[in-house]
Formats: sequence, C-alpha cells, structure tokens
Amino acid sequence: MDGKALKRLLGGVKSGRLPVEQALNSLRALPYEDLGCAKLDLHRSIRTGFPEVVFCQGKTGEQSVEIIKRLAKHHTKVLATRAGPDIAERVAEAVAGSVYHPEARVLVVDRTGTKRARASRVKKYVMVLCAGTADIPVAEEAAVTAETMGSRVERAYDIGVAGLHRLLDQKERIMGANVLIVAAGMEGALPSVVGGMASCPVIAVPTSVGYGASFGGLAALLAMLNSCAAGVAVMNIDNGFGAGYFAHLVNR
Amino acid sequence: MDGKALKRLLGGVKSGRLPVEQALNSLRALPYEDLGCAKLDLHRSIRTGFPEVVFCQGKTGEQSVEIIKRLAKHHTKVLATRAGPDIAERVAEAVAGSVYHPEARVLVVDRTGTKRARASRVKKYVMVLCAGTADIPVAEEAAVTAETMGSRVERAYDIGVAGLHRLLDQKERIMGANVLIVAAGMEGALPSVVGGMASCPVIAVPTSVGYGASFGGLAALLAMLNSCAAGVAVMNIDNGFGAGYFAHLVNR
Amino acid sequence: MDGKALKRLLGGVKSGRLPVEQALNSLRALPYEDLGCAKLDLHRSIRTGFPEVVFCQGKTGEQSVEIIKRLAKHHTKVLATRAGPDIAERVAEAVAGSVYHPEARVLVVDRTGTKRARASRVKKYVMVLCAGTADIPVAEEAAVTAETMGSRVERAYDIGVAGLHRLLDQKERIMGANVLIVAAGMEGALPSVVGGMASCPVIAVPTSVGYGASFGGLAALLAMLNSCAAGVAVMNIDNGFGAGYFAHLVNR
Amino acid sequence: MDGKALKRLLGGVKSGRLPVEQALNSLRALPYEDLGCAKLDLHRSIRTGFPEVVFCQGKTGEQSVEIIKRLAKHHTKVLATRAGPDIAERVAEAVAGSVYHPEARVLVVDRTGTKRARASRVKKYVMVLCAGTADIPVAEEAAVTAETMGSRVERAYDIGVAGLHRLLDQKERIMGANVLIVAAGMEGALPSVVGGMASCPVIAVPTSVGYGASFGGLAALLAMLNSCAAGVAVMNIDNGFGAGYFAHLVNR
Amino acid sequence: MDGKALKRLLGGVKSGRLPVEQALNSLRALPYEDLGCAKLDLHRSIRTGFPEVVFCQGKTGEQSVEIIKRLAKHHTKVLATRAGPDIAERVAEAVAGSVYHPEARVLVVDRTGTKRARASRVKKYVMVLCAGTADIPVAEEAAVTAETMGSRVERAYDIGVAGLHRLLDQKERIMGANVLIVAAGMEGALPSVVGGMASCPVIAVPTSVGYGASFGGLAALLAMLNSCAAGVAVMNIDNGFGAGYFAHLVNR
Amino acid sequence: MDGKALKRLLGGVKSGRLPVEQALNSLRALPYEDLGCAKLDLHRSIRTGFPEVVFCQGKTGEQSVEIIKRLAKHHTKVLATRAGPDIAERVAEAVAGSVYHPEARVLVVDRTGTKRARASRVKKYVMVLCAGTADIPVAEEAAVTAETMGSRVERAYDIGVAGLHRLLDQKERIMGANVLIVAAGMEGALPSVVGGMASCPVIAVPTSVGYGASFGGLAALLAMLNSCAAGVAVMNIDNGFGAGYFAHLVNR
Amino acid sequence: MDGKALKRLLGGVKSGRLPVEQALNSLRALPYEDLGCAKLDLHRSIRTGFPEVVFCQGKTGEQSVEIIKRLAKHHTKVLATRAGPDIAERVAEAVAGSVYHPEARVLVVDRTGTKRARASRVKKYVMVLCAGTADIPVAEEAAVTAETMGSRVERAYDIGVAGLHRLLDQKERIMGANVLIVAAGMEGALPSVVGGMASCPVIAVPTSVGYGASFGGLAALLAMLNSCAAGVAVMNIDNGFGAGYFAHLVNR
Amino acid sequence: MDGKALKRLLGGVKSGRLPVEQALNSLRALPYEDLGCAKLDLHRSIRTGFPEVVFCQGKTGEQSVEIIKRLAKHHTKVLATRAGPDIAERVAEAVAGSVYHPEARVLVVDRTGTKRARASRVKKYVMVLCAGTADIPVAEEAAVTAETMGSRVERAYDIGVAGLHRLLDQKERIMGANVLIVAAGMEGALPSVVGGMASCPVIAVPTSVGYGASFGGLAALLAMLNSCAAGVAVMNIDNGFGAGYFAHLVNR
Repeated sequence: MDGKALKRLLGGVKSGRLPVEQALNSLRALPYEDLGCAKLDLHRSIRTGFPEVVFCQGKTGEQSVEIIKRLAKHHTKVLATRAGPDIAERVAEAVAGSVYHPEARVLVVDRTGTKRARASRVKKYVMVLCAGTADIPVAEEAAVTAETMGSRVERAYDIGVAGLHRLLDQKERIMGANVLIVAAGMEGALPSVVGGMASCPVIAVPTSVGYGASFGGLAALLAMLNSCAAGVAVMNIDNGFGAGYFAHLVNR
Repeated sequence: MDGKALKRLLGGVKSGRLPVEQALNSLRALPYEDLGCAKLDLHRSIRTGFPEVVFCQGKTGEQSVEIIKRLAKHHTKVLATRAGPDIAERVAEAVAGSVYHPEARVLVVDRTGTKRARASRVKKYVMVLCAGTADIPVAEEAAVTAETMGSRVERAYDIGVAGLHRLLDQKERIMGANVLIVAAGMEGALPSVVGGMASCPVIAVPTSVGYGASFGGLAALLAMLNSCAAGVAVMNIDNGFGAGYFAHLVNR
Repeated sequence: MDGKALKRLLGGVKSGRLPVEQALNSLRALPYEDLGCAKLDLHRSIRTGFPEVVFCQGKTGEQSVEIIKRLAKHHTKVLATRAGPDIAERVAEAVAGSVYHPEARVLVVDRTGTKRARASRVKKYVMVLCAGTADIPVAEEAAVTAETMGSRVERAYDIGVAGLHRLLDQKERIMGANVLIVAAGMEGALPSVVGGMASCPVIAVPTSVGYGASFGGLAALLAMLNSCAAGVAVMNIDNGFGAGYFAHLVNR
Repeated sequence: MDGKALKRLLGGVKSGRLPVEQALNSLRALPYEDLGCAKLDLHRSIRTGFPEVVFCQGKTGEQSVEIIKRLAKHHTKVLATRAGPDIAERVAEAVAGSVYHPEARVLVVDRTGTKRARASRVKKYVMVLCAGTADIPVAEEAAVTAETMGSRVERAYDIGVAGLHRLLDQKERIMGANVLIVAAGMEGALPSVVGGMASCPVIAVPTSVGYGASFGGLAALLAMLNSCAAGVAVMNIDNGFGAGYFAHLVNR
Repeated sequence: MDGKALKRLLGGVKSGRLPVEQALNSLRALPYEDLGCAKLDLHRSIRTGFPEVVFCQGKTGEQSVEIIKRLAKHHTKVLATRAGPDIAERVAEAVAGSVYHPEARVLVVDRTGTKRARASRVKKYVMVLCAGTADIPVAEEAAVTAETMGSRVERAYDIGVAGLHRLLDQKERIMGANVLIVAAGMEGALPSVVGGMASCPVIAVPTSVGYGASFGGLAALLAMLNSCAAGVAVMNIDNGFGAGYFAHLVNR
Repeated sequence: MDGKALKRLLGGVKSGRLPVEQALNSLRALPYEDLGCAKLDLHRSIRTGFPEVVFCQGKTGEQSVEIIKRLAKHHTKVLATRAGPDIAERVAEAVAGSVYHPEARVLVVDRTGTKRARASRVKKYVMVLCAGTADIPVAEEAAVTAETMGSRVERAYDIGVAGLHRLLDQKERIMGANVLIVAAGMEGALPSVVGGMASCPVIAVPTSVGYGASFGGLAALLAMLNSCAAGVAVMNIDNGFGAGYFAHLVNR
Repeated sequence: MDGKALKRLLGGVKSGRLPVEQALNSLRALPYEDLGCAKLDLHRSIRTGFPEVVFCQGKTGEQSVEIIKRLAKHHTKVLATRAGPDIAERVAEAVAGSVYHPEARVLVVDRTGTKRARASRVKKYVMVLCAGTADIPVAEEAAVTAETMGSRVERAYDIGVAGLHRLLDQKERIMGANVLIVAAGMEGALPSVVGGMASCPVIAVPTSVGYGASFGGLAALLAMLNSCAAGVAVMNIDNGFGAGYFAHLVNR
Repeated sequence: MDGKALKRLLGGVKSGRLPVEQALNSLRALPYEDLGCAKLDLHRSIRTGFPEVVFCQGKTGEQSVEIIKRLAKHHTKVLATRAGPDIAERVAEAVAGSVYHPEARVLVVDRTGTKRARASRVKKYVMVLCAGTADIPVAEEAAVTAETMGSRVERAYDIGVAGLHRLLDQKERIMGANVLIVAAGMEGALPSVVGGMASCPVIAVPTSVGYGASFGGLAALLAMLNSCAAGVAVMNIDNGFGAGYFAHLVNR
C-alpha cells in the first residue's frame, strides 16, 4: 500500500464511502504480501533475466530432477548448481534444451535463445580468473552463472602469482573488464595482485584447493578478507555461483 | 613500452640509427614501470577521482600527520582513515580545507570543491545501512569514503533485524539504490534480509560490535559469508573504507 | 517403584506377609529407577508423558533394535532418534504400534493412543519453523519429539530470511504460538528475525546445512548465540530432539 | 498509536475536522512505535510488564545517561545493563526512583511499584544458580532482569559441581522452580548436573570466568551446548540479561 | 543411610514401632547430605594435610584479603594463589606467620610448622622442571603448592630442549623423582623429552609464554596433549597450582 | 659413563696404561648410549613389567601383524592398541597366548601368567569410569592397558552426570580407588564431579563421542582442562591407552 | 627466446632480412617461456637441474598420466608427487626410465643419469630425519625430491624425542649435514631438539600423523612455529616436497 | 674447556701434577659450556660469529640490562631483541660500544669491529623485503640480526603486491640475492610472488600487522604456509630475529 492507495483510502473515509470500521480493519490487516515483497521477486526476475536457481548439493538426485523439471515448466531459464552428471542425464531426457557444463557442475535450461548471441555483441564483460587448474570448477561455476544471467564472460585460468608473467600477459584483458572474479585456493594471493592492477571491482572467491594448513579453504578466505588492495570483496569458499551472480549485478 | 614505442625501436634498428646492442639492452632492461603498471595507477587516480589514502592505525600521530601533509601538496584529494581527533587538529593547522568526520574517524582534504554539489544532482546513489548504533562508526567510514570518491550516499542507521518494521520502512530507498553497504555486528543477519529485498549488489561489512561468542566480529563475518541471499559479497571486519571504495567502483 | 508400590511393600512388612530380609533385598536390588533419585525420573515420566529416548547414532543397528525392543516392553512410549530405515524395519517386525518418521529419522512407539487426538483439542502449541528445505530433517526431529511428548505442533518450513514475505505470511501463526523452535543453517539469521516478531520464547537450532565457511554449522551457531533479539536460546548443532524436548517443557 | 487513536484519527477525517492531507501526514510520519509492526512492541510491553532496555557497553557514559533519561520520561520501567556506577550516579540525580544493582551492573527505573510485592505472593518462580562466586555478576544480571520484568526469583550461588553436596542441598528449591537459570564458567558442567535433577527447562549461561584454555568462556559454552541432559538451552557468554529475559517469558 | 540403618528401619516397621507413613517419608526424604558427601571433604582435609585454597585472580584485593583472614582463623594452612604483593602486605599485617612467594605469586599461611622440616627427611620427592626463565612463575606456583601440601620438592629450571646437555645433566635427579612436573611455553616439547627419560608420571603444564602462533599457550597445550611419550598428563595453561596439587596426591 | 668409569679412565691415564691421546678420544667420543639412556629403557621395562606397545592405527594390517609377531618373540608381554579384529585373527594363528579385547580394540600377548591372578589379591586398584555407553571403547582401552601392566582394575560405566544417582551409587568404590580414570565425551563434565568426590588423582580422558559443537571431542577436552576440581589431569582425546599407562605408574 | 635468439632477430631486422612487422609480431607473440620473466624459469631449470613437477592430488589419474607423459617429452627430469601406484604403472608403460618410490608416492623420470652417481661423490649432504615410522612417507617425499634435484641425501628415521638415545646416536651425521629436514607429527618436538644440536639450517615439516587434539597436524605445526631453537623454519603440514625443494636450494 | 685445555688436564694427570680426584672434580664440575655438548655451542659461536642473544620481552628492564651487561663481559658480540629504548639507554651507560636500532628494537654490542666493513666487500647477500611500512620493525629485526651475525644485508621495503611495479623494480636485486627474507602482514601474499621470481630460498615472516580477520597475523601465517611457490619456508608471526638467524645460516 503506497502513498496513493493510502490517500484513496482516506478519501473514501472522508466521503463516507468507506466506513471507519472498515478502514480501520484495512489499515490493521495490511498483509505483508500487499507491501509487494513477493511481487518484487517476480519483477526482479523479469527485469534482470535472472533464472530460477536450484542448489543440488544435499538433495537426492530425484528431488533435484523433480524440482528442475517443475521449474522448467514455468520459467524460460533454470540454473542448477552442484549438479552431478547423473542429474544432467535424467534432466536431458525430460527437458528440451538443457545444457550441462561438467566442469562447472552446472546444468542450464535456457529457452530465451539470446544469451550467447547477445553476449558476443556487448562490450562490457565479466572476466573470470583462477590461480590453478584445480580452481577451474569454481571459476567455471561463476562463469556459467554470469553467462546464463546474460553477461559476456572472458576467462583466463591457471595464472597463479608464483608465475607472474602469465598474469601480466593478461593485463590488457584485465584492464578492459567491467568486473573481475578471481578464484584461488592455497594462499589465495591472486585477488590482491589483480586488485592492484585493475580499476574495476574484484570479487574474490576462495577455493578449498590445498591441503594441511589450508584448512579446507580457510587460509585463502582469510587472505582475501585481508587483501591489501582496495576494491576487493569476498565470497564464501567455493561459492562460484555467488560470485557469478554478484558480478552480473555489477555488470548489467 | 607499448606497441608504438616497440615499432619505433625496431624502425630505429632497421634504419641503422639504433645499434643492435643498444636495442638489445633496451629490450632487456625494460623496467616494468615502462609496461605501464605504474602509469596505470596514475591514470586510475585521474579517471576515478579517487583520493590518496592513509591508514593511520599503527602509525604514530607524527607519521600520519607528516604523510597527510606531504600528500596534500600534490593531490587535490586525500583521505585518512582510522584517524584520531589529535591528528585532525594538527592537520587542520597545517592544511587548508581539511574536514574531520569524528564518528567515521576519517579526515578528508578535498580541494576539488565538487563532491557534495555534484552528489546532490546525481540519481544513482550508494546506500549505507547499519544494524545498531554501535555500528555507525564503520558505516560512516564507508559513507564518507564513497562520498569523498564522488558518489552520492544515502544513509539509514539502526535498523537491525530484530525490529523488521524499521527496515521495511526503508524499502523504497533500498529498492532505489545502485549498490548497498550493510554493516552489522553480533549475528550479522542484516545483509541477508536486505539481500532478499534488493536487486542491486550488497556489500556486507561485519563489525566487531558484540561480546562473548561474537569473537571480535567472527560470528558476523561467518554469517555474512554464508548468506542465503545471492548478491552479497563480504569485506573484512570493520573495513568500512573497503566497502565504501568497492561501492564507489560499482556505482560510478 | 512409585509411592504406591513402596507403601504396599512397607504394608507387607508390617503385616508380616513380607519378611524383613526379603523387603531389604527388594529395596537394595531396586534398579536405579526405583531408588529415591530415580523415582523422580518415573514421576516426571508419568507427569510429562515423556517417553524413554534412544540415541541410535554411534550404536550398531543390532544394539539399537535390542534396546528399543527392551524399552518397549516396560514403557508405553519410546522415542528413538537418529534411527535409519533399517532399524525401523526391524523394530516394526518385533514391536506393535511402532511408527517411523523417515524425514525426522525418528522412530516412535506409542501405546497411549492419546497424543495426536489430544493435540488437536489443545490451544497452546509449539511452532516449528525452518529456513530451507535442507533444514527439514532437524525441524522434523524437533516436531516429532514435541508431539510424542504430548504437545500440539504447528509447522512452517522453507521461510528463510532472504524472502521475507514468506516469513511475514506466517505472522499470525507465529504470534499465536506458545513457544517457537527455529532451525536454520548457513548464516542462521532466522531466529533473530523471528525473535523480533514474537513475544514467546524462541529456541534456535543451528543446522549443519551449508558449505565452506559454515564450518559444519559453526557459522549458524555463532550467529544464533549473538542474536540481537532478546528471548532466544540456543541448542547444539542439529539437535532437533533437544529443541523439541525443551519446547515441550515450556509448553506443557 | 493504538487502535483507539487510530479510530479517533479516522473519525476526525470522516467528520471533516481532520483534513485528508494532515491525516495522511500523520499516518506517514507515525513514529515506528505507532505503526502496525511496532504497535506489537507496545502491546507486548504492556502485557509482559517488560521494560525498555539499554545496553550501555560500547556507549559513552553521556549517551547512556541521555537515553535512560529520555526513556524514563515515557515508560514506567527502564532497565539499563552493563552500566557502571558513574552512570548510576548521574541517572540518580536526574531520575526519581532509579535503583542501582552494583554486582549485576544493572540500573532499574521502576515506577509501577508492584514488582517485589507481587513477587512475594506468587508461587511460580525462576531460580538462578551459579557455580562460583566469580559468576555472581552474570547471575545477578539474570536475576535482576527477571525480577524487573515481574518474575519472582530465587537464588543459590557458589554451588559448583566439585562440591556436589552444596548442590544437592538445594534440591528441594531446584525441584520446585518453574524455570532454572544456571551460570557457570570454567568447565561449565553445572547445567548438565542440574538438568539431570530438574524437570523444568534449564537456561545455561556460560561465563567468561576462567583462564588459559577457557578461551574467554568458549570452554563453558561448548560444554553447555553438548550437555548430555535434555532440557538445556544455551545463551551467549556472560549474557545474564538474555537468560533473565528468556526465563521470564517461560515463567509468566 | 547404609544397609544397617535400612534394616533397622524395616525392623521398626515390622515391630509396629515405626508407622508405615513415617517410614515412607524417611525413605522419600533421604537428604543427600546424609550420604556423607560434605563430611568427606572434611575428612580429606584432615587426612591429606591439604590447605584451604583461595584463587585471588578475578577478586578485588579487599575480597581476597578478607577471605584469607577468615580462613586463617579456622585452618592451620591457607594457600592463596595469583596473589599480588599488595594482598601479601595487607595479609602480613593481619595474619601471623604468613609467607609470600613473589615469583609464584602464592601466599602461604602455615601454622603446622612441619612442612619444610619434614620434607628434608623424606626420600620421595616431586621434581619441578621448566624450560625457560619465563616459565618460572608457573613452576614456582606448582612447587610452592606441593610443598605447602607436604611434599618434598626438587627444582631444575631453564633446561629447555634446545640445549639438551642442560637437561641431560639433571638425569640423575629426574630418574630419582617420584613424580615430575614439567612447565613449558612456546613449543611445549620438554614434557615429551622428559617423559622419555623418566619412569614416573609426568604432569605437563603448558605456559602462556611465547608470542605469535603460540596463541596464549595453545601451541604448548596441544603439543603436550599429543606427547609421543607415554606417562604424560596435562593441566590447563599456566595452572601451576593444579599441577602441584595433583603431584602431591600422587606423591604422598 | 658414570663416575666410576671416569675414575678408572683417569686412573689409567695416571698409571700410564692409557695414553693421553686415547683418553682424550674416549672423552670426546663418549657415545650418548654410554650415558645409559638406552639401557634405562630396558631397566624400566623389567622393573615395571610394562609391555612393548604397538599403535596399529595408520599401519597396514600386515605391518601391524609383523611387528607384533617380532616383538612377541623377545618379550613376555606385548600390547597392541587400535587393533581391528582382522589383526587379532592373524596374530592368533601365529602367536600362542594372544588375547583380543574387541571393545577396547586391544590385543594382548602375555606369557607371564601372573597378571589377573595377582590383581585379584592386591588391595590398591585403578578405577575406570565412563559417562555413556559410547565411551566404553576408550574406557576399556584404558582398563585393559592398566591390567596388562599389572594393576587391578575396577570398572563402572554409563554413569553420566545427567543421572547423578547412578554416580552416587558408586561412591564407595570411587572413594576406595588409588587412582581414577574418567572417560567422557559431549560436555565432559564427569571428571569434575568425580574429582569433587574423590581424594585420589583423577585422570580425565575426553572422548570424541558427540556431534555438532562437540567438534570431535574438543568440547570435552576444554571442559576437562578447565575443571574446577583440583586433582584432575587430562589426556588427549580418545587416549585410553595413555590414561591406563599413566594410572598404572601412579598405582604401582 | 634467450639473448642469442633476440640478437639474431635484431640482426635480421637490421639486415632487412626480417621485416619490422614480422619482428614486431615475433616479439609480441613470444610464448611465456620466451619472455624475460619466463626465461628466468628456464635458466633456473638448467642451472639447478630442477625437474618439472606435477602435483597429482586433486587430478584424475588420466590427467596426471597425460601431463607426465607430455612433460617427459621435453624435459630430462620430471617429478610427480602424491602419485598413486596406478599412475606409476600407467606411466611405466609409456615413459622409459620412470622410477616409482611407493613410500614417498613420488614418480621420477630422470634421463640425465647423473644424480645418484654424482650424489655419492659429494661431501655436502641434506639429512632427512623423522620422528616415527608413520612420518616416513613425508620424509621420503622430501628425500626423493632433494635427490632428484641433485642433492646427496642421508636418512635417519624413527628417532622421536621420547627415546633420546636414538637421536643422540645420530649426532655425528646430524652435525655433518649441510641442511636438515625434520618431519614429525603428534607434538612436533623433534625439530626443536635437533635445532639445538645442529649448527646448520633446520627445515621442520609437521605431519598429519596423530589423532584427537593433533587436529590433522595443527599441533605439530604450531609447535614447530614456536620452536625455542633458532635456525628452524617451517613448511606446510605434510609438505615433504616443499622441504626437499627448499633444502636443495640451500644445499646446492 | 676446549681440546687443548682437556689435553692439558690429562697431561697433568699423567705427570702426577694433578691428582686424579682433583681432575675428576674438574671434569664433573665443568660448567655446561665446557662439556662436549656445550663445547659445540662455543665452537659454533666462534665459527659463525654468532652473538649471544637476549629475548627481552617478558623480562623486566632490570633483568634484561643485567643479563646484557653480564654477557657483554665475556662475549665480543651480544644481541638483545624486543628491547625498548629504556633498556638501550641503561645499557649505553654501562657497556661501551652498544648500538641501538630503534625500529628493530634491537640492541647490539659488537666489539669485533668487522661486520659492516666486511659486509661491504662480500658479494653474497641476504635481501630483506617487506610489504608495508608497518612491517618494517619485523624486517629490521631480521636485517639487524643477519648483519650482526656477519651477513651483508640489502633492504627493499614497502613493496606490497597491490602495486606490483614497486616489486618488479627490485627484480635485479632480488635475483642477485643468496637468500631472501620476506615480511608481510594482512594477506601475506608477498612471499608467494617473490618466490615465483627468485631462484634462492625464501624465508617468509608473517607479521601481526592488520585488523579484523587477520587475527593477529594468523591470516598471513596460513597464507605463507600454503604458498603455491616452491622454495618458501615460514617463521612464527613477527619472528624477525628467527628469520635473520636462519638466513645467515643459509648465507654464510
């Protein structure tokens, strides 16, 4: 109930059309869904082209497949993360146009037909970097998420800080990006170095790659939170999806 | 040394003007700053209007004052964070146009004269929220940073999740923001709730406000990293400056 | 051995029917539950309708089944938590009236025949909320426990803070509850938001749902302990049983 | 603004005494406590006799005193926790009827005049236990909070588990309580032992009392979360206020 | 109430001397203090010659002094740990025969006059070792405690593992001890080395000596818990008192 | 090289039998094994009747079996801990007189034939307590270790603090013990309560029994380190062997 | 592209044989190993005899085998760590001269044929020590790495601090080493003791050997970082490769 | 007592000038530094030019001054770390030739007169880098330590990874170093980047510089332990002395 509706209500009271008791009840009983919270979600979905998302981890294969199928009936885009190949196969049989990205473990249903085409025409792009080959699954989860949402995505993988020349070679592309996603495990130093080179926002994603004192990605997480480079924000460990989503919000 | 310079060098070799040995040395000795890394910093500073920043914590008062004075000679904008009132007083005597923000503990020298004026005319704004009154210093550090960099900033403080109506009351302004900064201590739940309401990127800043099992902000930090709302990225504990900087990069 | 039995024994001694030595042995050999200390346990059991509880985790299937069967001989209610379907099957063959709740992984033997019926007639109820579908097993463990103890239980699942409207939709039922159980993983923000809405005690149950920096439920646990809403107390991670038990003590 | 005031406003609009625009502004400018959401807070306050609460820690003395004074103008009960004696002195000069509890570091303004008197007549009581003398400040914060809210409170201090007889001596009073608060530092074992004796809910409050591997109360906190006794819920370290508040919600 | 008393009670019932109701109440009301828990403490004190102990840390100077004075009236031995020199001075004025050990920060009141004399005649001794000079306060707290309880104590300080010859030089005395206390900070390696040399129990006391990754003694604590030498048990960080007490229990 | 040997050497030099150079080399080259470190081990083994110990965890079955067989050739007692039933079977085929304790997962080869017999005649005993049935494997590892070393061992299991009467029932046996081993998981409160009842040393063994915030036994470990009862020392998590070994050293 | 090639290119430009555009493209398209930064890598490889390294953990068997085969085509030495026997078998079929070290889980392809021979002639050696037999895999990873790089390596295993004589027996060899690697799990005390004996640098490698409060090697790691012996530096948990590599850099 | 003195003693015994008993006592009473074990220490001191070291932290000013004075009587070099200016002043009055390094908080007494002179002539050098100006105290502690021991030291400070050009500028000097010390706080990324550039050993020193999630240097420590660059070993947080010592051992 916005200002206009409120005025209309008061007008009704003044004119006698709306009895005081009824107005009182209206004001008291204002359900929260009338504040537009729920509608807002729909609006946002339409506006941003953002797909419905299914987080498959912790669900049984059957549950995941069922949810994906149901969503695919009502939405033109569905994104399922942490999806194994078995889920992909079963969805492929049931849903036309589903595409599976095995490295990202992401399944995409996209009937809008516009994403990739549009992406190639736009100048603004999200760039996804990662430090080592073992970080690629997380990087790909981010990349596929941003692409599915409609962003053009550039990739540069295996450019860890222990071989700076590989990173410096990507300087041009890094400088040209609109927003950067940097995934790294172990010591998680890459976002700091990239943050010093770039003038756009850097989204750092620690990965659980490492052993011993990496403590499942904690070392990389802490390193990124303490980055000496300004302009670096951090996602949860292995949260490629979150990085891709955030990057698209910045990029669009 | 960009493509042009390289071509010129090779041209010199071809024409015989530049002996091979000398060209060889030039190519070998190419300092890295000639690759544009260092220039880049200057370019960025000019392009973004970003001020030079001094982190006063861990420096003696004398060191901080000296650095601020020196920077203020060559730059039109200087930002000093974690600056106590004593530093502010001593800078005020020496540098014209310095403004101290006591709650943010930020000192700003701005001779461009454009910020506030310009901010009032722009439509895109950064919105800074915080959960409790004790979080205001961090929120203000973020707000003053973004303003000094040139963003228009809106504020809404003391709107923690335990009194949802205070937050819902800000819905319009939250929905209209271009990027959100949300500072919260204790259980750090506010960014998740805001993230569910907003369609723009949310930068979550855990604060060290709390006691006992807040472990100096760790509880809020972990909560924010695990936010169930997509579109939330996280800064270090109490890092208001980083949030303001990042927000401006997104907003500009 | 309750008060009546004890009086009967003493009466037998007085009348000479029961020799002193035999009475002495009876009193000495009383299993713990017949001693003064344990008597209390029986009294409580009768008064609260509380069942005997078996925690199956860490026991072999055989051990669990054996204990359940033995308890079911002497008690009208037995509750077995963390019980897999294999245990349920084997108990079903041996014990009449056992009911298995697969989502809660709880097995109930209830021969009192009164619970559900009585529950529908009472006005006071325990309400169990959870943030995501993955939290349902913990929520159900709590709900089934409270129901088995004799409380009426209302449920509202998948109402996490990132979609406030889902939560606000439940406002009436939340306001009407006598005590609330709120299970949530990831950032564990739901109890704070609910605590701000409700005027009854809130029992927060962190779940191990999440990944990366959730550290097996630690993030949710810390968040709940630091809740800015007054009236929130916390259980161990995944301890649905404890929450249901505590809630019934408050509710009865 | 309660129902009556709202009705009066609408009546004014109907009668033409109150212009629509003015009514509109009234409704828009309603301070939070007059909105539907906040009304609830007032209702609860009236119903539970719960005072407004000020958490002084992290505020300057001046801020705390100012807030307490302002609240004392509009409320019959104000509770200020973590309040030093200096705050108490300054409030005493300005606010009639303020009482300071130095051990609890709690300041109470109560003009209802009913609490203690009423408490002595009621049968249901909250019992507050603590393990060592060093835990008394936390226990007293809990006790004074519950008393100020209107509960009758019984106390039994310095009854740690290393001297069981002291605890067993209190068995009668413990058995008779409606809800128990148990504060303990160091190994935090007392709630488990009490939980095994009592048939009512036990609210465990870990304190930061200890040294070395107590890690500021972490040891006690973890112990309480892992209590083998059912019916135990846990508060944040040193959160006596939260325990007293929760206990009153259960007790009333 | 032991077997005899129980038989007597039942005999009374049989003979009619004891009415059933009264017997019933006797059995029901068996107070726990009748089990002798509290008496036991007194017995132990007499039997072991163990003093009453005051832990001054966390108490005000006044409280500590008052408690020590009160105890000194009824006991021939009082031990106050973590006591500063100010407490010692004030006790010295009021209590005859108090001795202060400044390094141990322990104050002893001993009117039995037997300790040191007796100690010199006994063959069995507790040996207290420490790794560095900074560990001496903890070692002395242990040594003075064991001595005050009545054990003969030998000392060997500053014999850390980085200079093995210093330790090997003490081999004879180490081999001859009845029980060993080994205090060490930093890496806490000394108990493992000593445990490999000795054939008696070793009580390891981690100290908070160190910096950085010693995390207030955590490194030493973990090292000692993981000792590869059998026969090593561990006390809390800096708990010299506990080690001295435990050692005396083993030694006596 | 002890005093006698040194004197003999010097005597040889004096008499001219031993050339200076040769004596010099002897003194320089004094191997450490001549200091008696290695011999000492043998002496200890003979004196204490302590068996050779094999820690099977982390070894392959083959390695464990091979080591046990080899040791059994030269020693009259061998103790293998963390040994699975497969190891037991293979050893049983090859080594006469091996006995497997499945709950303790301990394999004992004892050809001295004296242990149990002797144990029944001695008055001094080690008592092993544990809180829950899940702690029994650790308790049994301790009990079997102490028995194999030659101590008489008494057991009392499943007497956790949530049902104090079960513990109080064991008071007599607890009071009569020479040294106590107390194993407990979850909140690890039992050693504190037992420590308050007993007058002998208490060896606390935290177990990894529990879930959620027990963090693999960390909660119990911290609780035991912070025990408010004096006379409690702590072993590593699940280190039943270490407790049994330490207890025997105290008991013998 | 080394200096010679660069000179030849410039010579070609000068002579007109190589058009400027083509030279420009050559310089631009230089593969990484031809850039200044990467050239260094090649130089280092030649100078140190250091092999290319593959970290197999986290890669599929197929990926590892493929990478090893490809590297073996261009390099005379390849080192693959954390390689299972299945990888070794498949490489053995495809690559001549591959040698598998099963305990170290290291696969070496070395066609230089010089290592072992040369090693036996050199006086300077790396010495690798470890505390227990379970630490041998990490020690061997270190030893094989250093040997493959060209260092002579001496080994002394199972010389933990609980049996000092075993360690002291190795004094001569320890004193003669040029650099020491010391691997230990559990309490990680060995590097401190060795550091006190040796006058050369000590590289400490914590291993994940242990249980309970070893927390996967954390206890050993912290102990080593806090070593009271000067001259000790620390590697990540289980990082035998890193230790061997570092030791060779020191030793060569 | 070196070899000569020992020979003289034995000669005295042989000639009869020195009675056996007296020689025996001499050998027995040898102060530690005269025994075989300790002799080594002296040898090392002479060979390496290593000074005696006093760690002032945790000692009173008086203790530190006294120890330094005493050592300065018998040694030509004394190094005191963590020494405040007050200690420096008091030593300066008493000991000729003491030099205080305020940034390093190191006090050096050096009467050999050779260090700096010699250092300028040697080619091999230790290079000390640090990331930010706040890391300089730790870096200087390392540099002064290595210099005092006799190494030539080069410095390059404030070259953090967020401004790569500053680091790349130092490439020549880094490449020329014999061993590198790299101190960094916050995210601790510098050693990884330097490790990728250099071909010599890198000693990484985490500093406690930072705030929030740096947890007193833990973030930097973990990052360095997980360095993806081979050839990096790690010291304790803020342990500049240890790094300088280790570096000199490698460099000499």
